Formats: sequence, structure tokens, C-alpha cells
Amino acid sequence: MRITSTILGVLALTLLLACSPQGDSGQPAAASDALPSWNDGEVKQAILDFVARVTDPASPDFVPEAARIATFDNDGTLWAEQPLYFQLFFTLDRVKALADEHPEWRSEQPFKAILEDDREALAAMGHAEIGQILAATHTGMTAEEFSSIARQWLDTSRHPRFDRPFDTCIYQPMVEVLEYLRANGFTTFIASAGGIEFMRTFADEAYGIPRHQVIGSSVETEFRVDGERSFLMRLPEAAFIDDRAAKPVAINRHIGRRPIAAFGNSDGDLQMLQYATGGDGTGLAVLVHHDDADREYAYDRGSKIGGLDEALDEAEARGWTVISMRDDWRTIFPPVE
Amino acid sequence: MRITSTILGVLALTLLLACSPQGDSGQPAAASDALPSWNDGEVKQAILDFVARVTDPASPDFVPEAARIATFDNDGTLWAEQPLYFQLFFTLDRVKALADEHPEWRSEQPFKAILEDDREALAAMGHAEIGQILAATHTGMTAEEFSSIARQWLDTSRHPRFDRPFDTCIYQPMVEVLEYLRANGFTTFIASAGGIEFMRTFADEAYGIPRHQVIGSSVETEFRVDGERSFLMRLPEAAFIDDRAAKPVAINRHIGRRPIAAFGNSDGDLQMLQYATGGDGTGLAVLVHHDDADREYAYDRGSKIGGLDEALDEAEARGWTVISMRDDWRTIFPPVE
Repeated sequence: MRITSTILGVLALTLLLACSPQGDSGQPAAASDALPSWNDGEVKQAILDFVARVTDPASPDFVPEAARIATFDNDGTLWAEQPLYFQLFFTLDRVKALADEHPEWRSEQPFKAILEDDREALAAMGHAEIGQILAATHTGMTAEEFSSIARQWLDTSRHPRFDRPFDTCIYQPMVEVLEYLRANGFTTFIASAGGIEFMRTFADEAYGIPRHQVIGSSVETEFRVDGERSFLMRLPEAAFIDDRAAKPVAINRHIGRRPIAAFGNSDGDLQMLQYATGGDGTGLAVLVHHDDADREYAYDRGSKIGGLDEALDEAEARGWTVISMRDDWRTIFPPVE
Repeated sequence: MRITSTILGVLALTLLLACSPQGDSGQPAAASDALPSWNDGEVKQAILDFVARVTDPASPDFVPEAARIATFDNDGTLWAEQPLYFQLFFTLDRVKALADEHPEWRSEQPFKAILEDDREALAAMGHAEIGQILAATHTGMTAEEFSSIARQWLDTSRHPRFDRPFDTCIYQPMVEVLEYLRANGFTTFIASAGGIEFMRTFADEAYGIPRHQVIGSSVETEFRVDGERSFLMRLPEAAFIDDRAAKPVAINRHIGRRPIAAFGNSDGDLQMLQYATGGDGTGLAVLVHHDDADREYAYDRGSKIGGLDEALDEAEARGWTVISMRDDWRTIFPPVE
């Protein structure tokens, strides 16, 4: 799983964050505009121009529909990732939800620290403790049971600052890009370090991305048969960590084609962007730069969550497209019904 | 990779097989028939009835479109697998094609045995030798280079008995089932022990299955960057062997849903069929039974390629659908232009 001690270590800080909900400002856009939540500017134009080039049969950059593959990181690219990766909120909530079945956790680390909100102990956790927490919350049930647990959590929990369901803390401008690409013959995929089964519980409804087009980190599963019934049991062992140089590997295994467009926001996405732009044809590499503390968050170099150093350097060196959330996005989140 | 010593061991026998091409008999079918290459009978009716049940909103077995997932084995289910798995013909041909670059192979086993058609030595090969052969033929190039090598082989080689390109030795009745399912809102996948990148070179054209809907065995790959260019290098190490109980595991990882229909032909498909029929709802499990020595091949129990023992027992016990190639299929292969 993608959760490292560094990441869990930021619990102490992030749980202290101010959490006042904050609305998005927005203006209506022309109905003919494919990207109404985007302000006009270089970034929006770069996306429109790229799509025009690869879809025009007369263009030297024309790409047939079957090869129009676009991959998107999830945390920080399609939905927010602060003050903690949302799957980490799920994990902590699961420990609390399971505490009654595990009275021993009240006196046993690492569970005691979570139950008591002991930030110092949480920040000091190592890989072994984090492995125990993930095993207790993400494994030991069938794939179908886990899906249902994750879905139920999404239906009953809210983001601490934005006070809306986590699966509505998605970026409306990126949803429009997904729809715009699909309308132009692209097939869209998620390629994220997040848990593959966790993301599959909301990706279709939130982004229009079906379960089989979600790539992520996974645990080992074992096929078991019980009479005429059968199921996949989730085992406490990581199968694949879909981050950094593993992203192109997973993209190749799942998709079998090099993407021609890739969208990310952190150093974990660098190799995916290198992959999308490293082939024979044209390729679009886009980074979401979180520079909007008022409407969302502002972070990049050195951030423990969504750290953006190497990838920002490479974007500058190679002229990749960098989205300024503050300047390029008219709206951040979709309206909540 | 799926090639075991047992499988390679049959080289000695299979290379001796009579290889006279043999045509298919066929009668025209009504244009209104969705499965024109099928004879009327219980098997065809079982497939039609299943599709009717899951697509009728008034049926208790109704399944929404997004969950209409069908998985198909490839070797022996969608295309022929005798006298050898076609990927094994490719492998042997690659050794011969590369022999000029490797003069040492003339005196070094296991390559010497292939170059000299030494069937006794071939039949005696163990895992280490087979690993060497696969490493030499399937790895050490980029993913894109391998695709192009495999595609070129398919374009220039012919089946020894049917005297037609290997990727036309596909079962026309199964192509019709694929099309019929898709016309009824299904998403169709391959789930095969064959090499994932090998199958992706023909699956779209032959079956209408895009590259990202192909699941198979894979080797490890490594992402490498060279200036602004980047690629995936294929490494001489198996990453996943997609056979038997690993099939449901891979199906869950790639698709994230339990199939409601699964088609196979050997014991390697047993668990996939158990998976498709082992959930809460209705499920269709279908076996292709090769009982047509005149038009294709006849083999089942004890066969070294496509052995069908346990799965045939379970099909009989549970009333799964068993296709008699001889009785149910009006035509075997599509016409060749």
C-alpha cells in the first residue's frame, strides 16, 4: 500500500489543521465551451490545442481513436488529498469503527494511538505498525465486502474542512477534461497510488471511469471455493504499489499502450508523465499545481503529501503544462445537491 | 510464463502430427440469427436464454450493463491450441530467426535442440531450459519492440495443418458470441494463460477486444529513461502466470467485478468458471469441448495441451454448458480473404 511512515507521520500536524469550509467562486460560462470551469489562458489553450492536433486526420500528430489513451493520477489530481489522503481518513475511521470488536486495541499499539488520537505516537509509527493497521482495516474480508465497506464510509463521512462527502471533493475542471477527452475519442484511466478497490467504489459515478479502467495499488487476494460459492479473500500482503516508476509498469500491464496524455500533481507522477511524452509521437504532460490556499490548499516543494519537486523541475525544463489552480480554475468543486 | 516442461515435452509428439489442411462445412443461416455459425440445440439456446434473462429489466436475473462482464480464455476457447500453443510456435520460430546472431546456440543447449529439431532433447527439457528459451525470445527488448516482433510473426507464419495465418484459426462461433454479448451491453475480456503482450497484437482485430481488455501472463518490465525518451524494458523474470486459481485473482485486479459469464476449455479455466457462477446472482459457465477430429481436433481428459478432466467433471455435476464443437458448431473458422 502507498502509506509510508512519512505519510502517516504527518497525522500529528494535519489533524491540527483549521477546517473551516470554504465555497468556490464561479461565473457561468458559454454553453458552447467544453471546459466551462476553466479560465481562458495558456493552460486551457494547451489542452484544447493538443486535442485538436491528435484528432485532426490532416494533422501530422493525428492519433487513431484506439490509441487515444489518457491516464490520470487521483489523489491531488482528480480529487483533493489534504489535509490527509482520503483513504487515510477511511483507515483511521475503520480502526475506530472496529474498536468494539477488538477490546485489546485499547491497550495495544498502534491501535491505541489512533483510538486516543495520540499524535506523538502516530507520528512515530514505522512500517511495521502501518502494516498492522492496513492489515486490520483493508484485509481479512472478501473483495466484495471491502467494496461495500468503503462505499458505506464514503456515504456517511465528510471532509473536515469542506464539510461535504469526500467523493464530492473532486475537481470540476478535471471532470470536464475527462468528459472532453472522451467526447474526442479518448479512453480515460486512473493510474494512482491509491488502493485500486477503494477508488473503484466511486470512480464511475464521480468521473465516468468504469471499474476496469482504474489502476492502483493492491493487496494479494486468494481465490477460495465453498461448495458452489466462491470469493476472493483479501490477504495482509501488498501485491503492487502503484507509484513513481511502477506507474508506467502498471499502465503497460493494464492498458497495453503508452498514454498520449497524462495528468498528475506530484513527484509520484513524474515517471507517468515521462512515459506519456517519451514515445515517437506527440504527448501531453500536465501537472496540477496546488497554489490556492483560499479555495483549496497551497503546497508543492517539500510537502509530505503531494510533494512536487523533481516533477516541477522537469516540467519547467521540458515545457510541460502546469495548471495554476488559483489562476486557471474558475471553480474547484462541483455543486453539492 | 505458461510454458511448463510438460507442455514443451509434447514437442516430440506434436511435431510428428499429420498436418493436412481441412475445410469447414457450412450452411447459410438466417440473417436474423445472432449466432449464424451455431446449430440449433440446447447449447445455443442456453446462451440465448442467459442473455435474455440478464438483459430483461423485468427478469429477477436482470443485471445492469456496467456489471455485464464476460471473460474468455483464449487458447482452445477463442482460437485453436493444437498441435501446439501458437505462442510456442512463435517461440521456436524466434529461436531459429535469432540463430544467426547467436552462433554459440549451434553447440549450446537448449537452443541446439530447437535448431536441430532434436525432439528427444526437446521433450526432456526442464524449467531451467525453458526459462532460457523464453528469456532469449520474449525479453531483452522494449514492450513496443516485442509487440512488433509478435505482430510480424503473425503476418508471416501459417498454421501447419490449416495452412492459414494463426490469427485466422479463430472460432467463428465464438466471435459471434463476443459480438452478440457486446450488442447486449456486455463488456468482453480475455483471461488467458497466454502472454498478455502476445495476445494484444491480434485481439482487437480478431475478436473486437481492445488491448486494455486483455488479461494474461506477463514478464516483469522496468521503466527506463534516456533523455526525453522513455520505454519499458522486458526483463527475464515472470511477473504473473494467469492460470487456474490465478485467473480469478487477475480478473479481479484488472476488471474489479465478478464476471457473470465465463468461457473456457480446459482445467486451467475451472476456477474462472467457478468464480463466474459462485456469486449472489446468476452466472453462465461454458466449456468448449474439442470433439471434432475431422474439422479441428479431438482431445479432453489427459491431454497435455488443453487437458479437460476436473472442469468436465464439475460441468457435469453442476449442469454447466458444454459446447460440442462437432455438433454445435456449423462452422469452425472464418473464411480467409
